[in-house]
Amino acid sequence: MYKTSNFSSNSLQPRMLVNRFSCTLSNQRVRIGHSTKVPRNVNMEKLQHGYLFPEIERHELLHLKKYPHANVIDLGIGDTTKPLPAIVTSSMVDFVHGLSTAEGYKGYGPEQGEKALRKAIAHKVYKDLGIKPSEVFVSDGAQCDISRLQLLMGPNLKIAVQDPSFPAYIDSSVIIGHAGKFVDRIGKYENIEYMTCGPQTDFFPDLHTTSRAQLIFFCSPNNPTGHAATRKQLQQLVDFAKVNGSIIIYDSAYSAYITDGSPKSIYEIPGAREVAIEVSSFSKFAGFTGVRLGWTVVPEELLYSNGFPVLHDFNRIVCTCFNGASNISQAGGLACLSPEGLNAVQSLVDYYMENARILVTALTSLGLTVYGGKNAPYVWVRFPGSKSWDVFAEILENTHIITIPGSGFGPGGEGYIRISAFGQRDSIIEASERLKYLLY
Amino acid sequence: MYKTSNFSSNSLQPRMLVNRFSCTLSNQRVRIGHSTKVPRNVNMEKLQHGYLFPEIERHELLHLKKYPHANVIDLGIGDTTKPLPAIVTSSMVDFVHGLSTAEGYKGYGPEQGEKALRKAIAHKVYKDLGIKPSEVFVSDGAQCDISRLQLLMGPNLKIAVQDPSFPAYIDSSVIIGHAGKFVDRIGKYENIEYMTCGPQTDFFPDLHTTSRAQLIFFCSPNNPTGHAATRKQLQQLVDFAKVNGSIIIYDSAYSAYITDGSPKSIYEIPGAREVAIEVSSFSKFAGFTGVRLGWTVVPEELLYSNGFPVLHDFNRIVCTCFNGASNISQAGGLACLSPEGLNAVQSLVDYYMENARILVTALTSLGLTVYGGKNAPYVWVRFPGSKSWDVFAEILENTHIITIPGSGFGPGGEGYIRISAFGQRDSIIEASERLKYLLY
Repeated sequence: MYKTSNFSSNSLQPRMLVNRFSCTLSNQRVRIGHSTKVPRNVNMEKLQHGYLFPEIERHELLHLKKYPHANVIDLGIGDTTKPLPAIVTSSMVDFVHGLSTAEGYKGYGPEQGEKALRKAIAHKVYKDLGIKPSEVFVSDGAQCDISRLQLLMGPNLKIAVQDPSFPAYIDSSVIIGHAGKFVDRIGKYENIEYMTCGPQTDFFPDLHTTSRAQLIFFCSPNNPTGHAATRKQLQQLVDFAKVNGSIIIYDSAYSAYITDGSPKSIYEIPGAREVAIEVSSFSKFAGFTGVRLGWTVVPEELLYSNGFPVLHDFNRIVCTCFNGASNISQAGGLACLSPEGLNAVQSLVDYYMENARILVTALTSLGLTVYGGKNAPYVWVRFPGSKSWDVFAEILENTHIITIPGSGFGPGGEGYIRISAFGQRDSIIEASERLKYLLY
Repeated sequence: MYKTSNFSSNSLQPRMLVNRFSCTLSNQRVRIGHSTKVPRNVNMEKLQHGYLFPEIERHELLHLKKYPHANVIDLGIGDTTKPLPAIVTSSMVDFVHGLSTAEGYKGYGPEQGEKALRKAIAHKVYKDLGIKPSEVFVSDGAQCDISRLQLLMGPNLKIAVQDPSFPAYIDSSVIIGHAGKFVDRIGKYENIEYMTCGPQTDFFPDLHTTSRAQLIFFCSPNNPTGHAATRKQLQQLVDFAKVNGSIIIYDSAYSAYITDGSPKSIYEIPGAREVAIEVSSFSKFAGFTGVRLGWTVVPEELLYSNGFPVLHDFNRIVCTCFNGASNISQAGGLACLSPEGLNAVQSLVDYYMENARILVTALTSLGLTVYGGKNAPYVWVRFPGSKSWDVFAEILENTHIITIPGSGFGPGGEGYIRISAFGQRDSIIEASERLKYLLY
């Protein structure tokens, strides 16, 4: 049985380490020599420390320096590990071969994405939900489109995020200027509404106590908790947005992992077309983390307060600040959405979900409280009374397993760690054994 | 001999058309139904009309509707047309094949780009200029990085642009909030410094009359004029930036086309490392317009007014708002920079420059004043006393050739049109004949 006292009070405190590093960096890097007269962007100054995932990589490198021969198992950053299906790579190979011929060469494509791909996303992903190809904007990934959506909306809006949640929502909000000051005491930005999503409320915000925000970032299945919002919860969210005049930015990057019938798209909810943008990705759905491909849906019915359609301005952003996703990646994406491709990528999803089941079983057998892993490739483990970064450090030190400290996803993640189910099966089994050995 | 009177005063005025279209769009699209309470971003409201290149495409479509059987030659948007060299495509094919194997599969790469590619750009493109791989950030194209640089710098800065210049500098400045109001009477944004670059000043700004700006966008070889700034001009620019404490954002996307020994990088100029960021691209250098790959160099010595390194914040932007260029495109980029790859892409550049020579010869033979085409794949043709959009329309109507009206690149481009030398040789020869027939 896991004991809190396993984590000595002298253990490395990476959160502090991170802060110390950043400060040192800031000070050490102030150089003597010609300085321009351009002031540093005040929004950049407000960012608290390095973006979470590169920080985790930095910890991994430090660990490898300390233990050069350690067999490190990386269950940290949710990075796909299974090869792409042959049907997908062979489509890309054909396309690339074409690029070396007069007939097959393609230059600039439409900034919004190839017509065939927009159509396939509208009809294959959204089926009978009535999404039009002209409402689909192909991107180089959800994270990039989140930034473009921030540019679209401009500064000075009040935003709300699930707490815990994917850190890009808050960090990109800070960069564009929504966030206000960071309040150390509570670990939050003053102008951001943190909607606590813990087990007490079935990982859904208590909307009765949630202030009105203009933009609501909502991720389902949630990264990191793995919770897929139920139909009833999402209807509440849509109704809440409608009453408050808010826009939901709905991140469905993990929707392919839903197994229990929860909605895979916000557009399954009546009224969503008037209040929600959906951002999604081929990264986790088809293993395109390095190939880079995603999309965003902006329904025609979504209007600013003056009645102007959001779609029109987003199209302008895409044309001006982006130049389309790689045409090779788009060829691969199109293959993923063929009947054979959909079968093939489903088998990748099934593989990772079996990994998740193995991790959940192992951790549950230790008496730990474990969430996620049923509708998402993330397992969310509670360590009551412990600090996430302490648990992260202890696990890394003693098992050579990289996880992610829950507090990296917001104060609501304190006391948890996130374990990714992406990985080769033997690593997952090995990691389960090591965790059992440490935590039993 | 070309006569101004060829262009009747009743000819289509596409500039007006564009504005009318946008207005109609704005009004027509204001819908009845639920509106959110999110105000439209005031910066988006300030954008004058559609982004130039999609607007040109729209004109092309309208023309094809009118003349469905016309053999339209597109010398408008500078889009590459030659197939990629086999060495480049075979490297990408190998990489894609690898993605379908356990050994070759790759997930997330470093946000800043693959180490080998950063190193190759530093050492093969910049040779002995002392650029470090850690100062090179691989991107999905120059246009995308221009937006990320705007995010980096934040709003409220004074910016300067060459007039005429690539419209993304101004449009992305408007979106981030630098630009202030658009003043119809002069066709300029009130807070942007337009640095006139015409033949009177050898296509270089008169820096004695240029107000101090915090950011100076400078493109050489310039798009659209085709002028490559001389070493002496660039030294003046660097000195000007240093004295004023400005940061130059130097766009060298066309540097591979320089034939007369003018600097191919701002870093050939002493002192540039303390004042300049360089943005560049594989698009025109290697035909990657659809494959999407570029890079940005941020030297360590470039410091904000408080001494903080710009590099550090740009790294944070890249990690938070971008997730790396497609790893397939990066494999292709690396192949371009091999000795064999460099030879192969040089032959593409030579081909387009021969096209440019053919166009310049034809237009010069008509007695027209022709610039560009020597260090850039753009030919910049003067039509004194005419409006660019009239010339554009007249050429399109009578020759079915798409060009770009010079005023689309800023008020300083009025009276010019830009003709792109990208295209198949036979189209270029045919276009030259049609232009001779029209304009003689």
